[in-house]
Amino acid sequence: MRITYNYIIMNIKFFTTTFLSLLLFISTSFAQPKYIFYLIGDGMGLNHVNLAEIYSAELQGRIGYQPLAFSQFPYVGFASTNSASSSITDSGAGGTALAVGKKTHNGVIGMDSAATVPQRSIAYAAKEAGLKVGITTSVSIDHATPAAFYAHQPKRSYAYEIASEIPTSGFDFFAGSGFVSPITTFDKKSVEDIHTLLATKGYTIVRGKHALRNDNHAGKKIVWLNNESQDKDALKYAIDQTAEDMSLEDITKGAIKALSHNNTKGFFLMVEGGKIDWASHANDCATTVKEVLDFNKTVQAAFDFYKKHPNETLIVVTADHETGGLSLGNGPSSLNLKALAHQKVSQGALSTLIGNIRKSQPNATWDEVKNLIAENTGLWTNLKVSEADEKEIKAAYEKSFVNHQNETSKSLYANDDKIASLSVRILNKIANVGWSSTNHTAAYVPVYAIGVGAEVFNQKMDNTDIPKKIAEAAKFNFN
Amino acid sequence: MRITYNYIIMNIKFFTTTFLSLLLFISTSFAQPKYIFYLIGDGMGLNHVNLAEIYSAELQGRIGYQPLAFSQFPYVGFASTNSASSSITDSGAGGTALAVGKKTHNGVIGMDSAATVPQRSIAYAAKEAGLKVGITTSVSIDHATPAAFYAHQPKRSYAYEIASEIPTSGFDFFAGSGFVSPITTFDKKSVEDIHTLLATKGYTIVRGKHALRNDNHAGKKIVWLNNESQDKDALKYAIDQTAEDMSLEDITKGAIKALSHNNTKGFFLMVEGGKIDWASHANDCATTVKEVLDFNKTVQAAFDFYKKHPNETLIVVTADHETGGLSLGNGPSSLNLKALAHQKVSQGALSTLIGNIRKSQPNATWDEVKNLIAENTGLWTNLKVSEADEKEIKAAYEKSFVNHQNETSKSLYANDDKIASLSVRILNKIANVGWSSTNHTAAYVPVYAIGVGAEVFNQKMDNTDIPKKIAEAAKFNFN
Repeated sequence: MRITYNYIIMNIKFFTTTFLSLLLFISTSFAQPKYIFYLIGDGMGLNHVNLAEIYSAELQGRIGYQPLAFSQFPYVGFASTNSASSSITDSGAGGTALAVGKKTHNGVIGMDSAATVPQRSIAYAAKEAGLKVGITTSVSIDHATPAAFYAHQPKRSYAYEIASEIPTSGFDFFAGSGFVSPITTFDKKSVEDIHTLLATKGYTIVRGKHALRNDNHAGKKIVWLNNESQDKDALKYAIDQTAEDMSLEDITKGAIKALSHNNTKGFFLMVEGGKIDWASHANDCATTVKEVLDFNKTVQAAFDFYKKHPNETLIVVTADHETGGLSLGNGPSSLNLKALAHQKVSQGALSTLIGNIRKSQPNATWDEVKNLIAENTGLWTNLKVSEADEKEIKAAYEKSFVNHQNETSKSLYANDDKIASLSVRILNKIANVGWSSTNHTAAYVPVYAIGVGAEVFNQKMDNTDIPKKIAEAAKFNFN
Repeated sequence: MRITYNYIIMNIKFFTTTFLSLLLFISTSFAQPKYIFYLIGDGMGLNHVNLAEIYSAELQGRIGYQPLAFSQFPYVGFASTNSASSSITDSGAGGTALAVGKKTHNGVIGMDSAATVPQRSIAYAAKEAGLKVGITTSVSIDHATPAAFYAHQPKRSYAYEIASEIPTSGFDFFAGSGFVSPITTFDKKSVEDIHTLLATKGYTIVRGKHALRNDNHAGKKIVWLNNESQDKDALKYAIDQTAEDMSLEDITKGAIKALSHNNTKGFFLMVEGGKIDWASHANDCATTVKEVLDFNKTVQAAFDFYKKHPNETLIVVTADHETGGLSLGNGPSSLNLKALAHQKVSQGALSTLIGNIRKSQPNATWDEVKNLIAENTGLWTNLKVSEADEKEIKAAYEKSFVNHQNETSKSLYANDDKIASLSVRILNKIANVGWSSTNHTAAYVPVYAIGVGAEVFNQKMDNTDIPKKIAEAAKFNFN
């Protein structure tokens, strides 16, 4: 090797970097995180993150990618997600793997595969270690992913039974849209209202975006829900939210504030971005990308906290499974993701708008319906629609508005108007993205980590390794 | 935190691990690799690796995944792959990014975006540092990916011009199927046979699987090609190879042997598994999974070398882009990849078999053609074919054998018989996999690393970072 000036400089740089790395290594190897963020994008595969990065760059008018807060974290990996019963997991077994560190059958929450023995989640380990614990989500608190952290039920559909485990968990903070079965058990029996039960057991129920703006509830055990006038099953999609709607970012910041209050022992906060999955079940790409970017705001809130407490914080970002078989290419040699920016509302909200027209003008003309679609998707106005695609969507219009046969397009969380779902499908095609399924897939999920202990997240993992690695970093007594 | 026996043991384990890690860190931080393997699966996205892992587990009769040699490497990451001209790269710009560490326009080989200034690849940096250099592939040596390591041409289609740069590179070892344009320039001029040119310039041309079995050519500069009777454009697909066919594993082991001969200074070996991409362009999933497993044998050969020289070796495994938009799920809640094991030949070979029947029995009956398909794919005999699917494939048969209109299904590297491609499409559907494109996509590519310097491969990268990180680990004077 020739000894050149550059070579000497390079070596000086190298030794300096090595020495500093060594110091960092020594200083962090003996530390453990006091604040742990476990952030889960439900349904967020690697292509979902990639989608958001490329979309953001295209909006800036350039080829490439705009990194998200978490895609710049210093340690990354990816994980297999199969459950004990299937190569493709559901959110019950996926959530249980991420919470408990063990595989179980699809549909089971926090129990073994036979659904007989309750399993202890990392949230319980955190609580036992003296940390405050927060379990939060953009969907209902009794939904599979959050449930896996505090509940133990044979079926994810046992919503009341799941929620009833909040008091026995003793955890400090819960947040989400609401409860989907507040007064009825899985076997249709009427029981004490879950809200009353929680209040009786010492939880303060607060509601709406601004509930934690002041310190009225500081130090209390909190269950934070959306306003009663809003859907119980989920917050609105980010694409449909106004500034007055409760968001996952609000929840995250509120959780950090509440859990930090007079707390010298630290906290463990799980936040689920639950609707990346929902939008992907519907193969609604514009809504999906906005959900990923919305989830990124949650990570940013955690990252801002990390920057204030870099030597005491660990952030791990991952997903429970991929949804939709999203792929970034459908034939041509480039993407056209900026086309997605023309979509103004979710497929579900567009369905509602079309349904409203159907009620108010049962014989609305094709031009009237077409204009509504154009306003909300950019089709025709900003984006050229092929003759074949127009023919297909017009046929759906005729079936619905002329023959008055209302068709829908069903996915796990939606039963959308066929005209709306066709519009979104055409927009996806123009953006050059593909979906292979309206269900989950077996794709790896990405894992991103920063902070104290993050260096163990550098391998191809199993999903069950993730909570174990967090526990290892935090020195929890765990499974 | 309770102080328990387990807790104390856990801490002893932790400190021991930390101390050993620290020693390892100190010992490796000041070392640099002497042997570098840069192994590139062309078209191998994360789902391709995942496919091979799950397929292997299903063949063992279990749910889950059987790790490949490289998926267990201690450091992993993933990389964005856009080129300077498009969000979806071709193999020219993709290979250039991996070789040179700079983005260029699609189609360009080892030059800047304007295709005017040659760029120096990491192989040249390795040579300059005194290492022997080998450039090898399962396709032709003048193909885009290997070309990017030694050539500098404005277009990847300039095959003769690319090959003519072998002598000027001065590299020690080349291997692949052959040269696709041995006597003709890009502008159709007849020129000196590339084989003669190479011989004149001091390269020994050897041919066939066993060419390097003995040491007759030890110490010489070698260009190793397949037998003259075989295709020049690529080795056979792994699924179509017999024990007597030259394989990528043969090439890799031969390259290691040749480059190791009397070599105290080390080597840099690039191996491309070029036909993962080809099979994926054709959306031929069984052939794809066998190509990934075949590529894994190459990695295993490198890994076996690593195990003998763990303190002197770096292995990096990655890909230039994803091909096909492969997804592991097409609706149902489980995969059925074991169905792919029934496919006995590639879609291309099945096309040939059908073509042979068409020649020998132009009026072959549906049962005769159906039997041929069944024998080679398991359709009907082992796997239930739906009525709709049978109808579609029978219609293709009738068009071809009754009406004598021969239909084909074209992809980048193949022009397959329609009956063959429909058969493979039906098999893919039964296996529950999806493909969104017959082209490349913008998916991340995986990166796996082990050995000296591997610890820098732990982040989300750009594809151009990969050669830079190798150069950093090896302390090469590079870009």
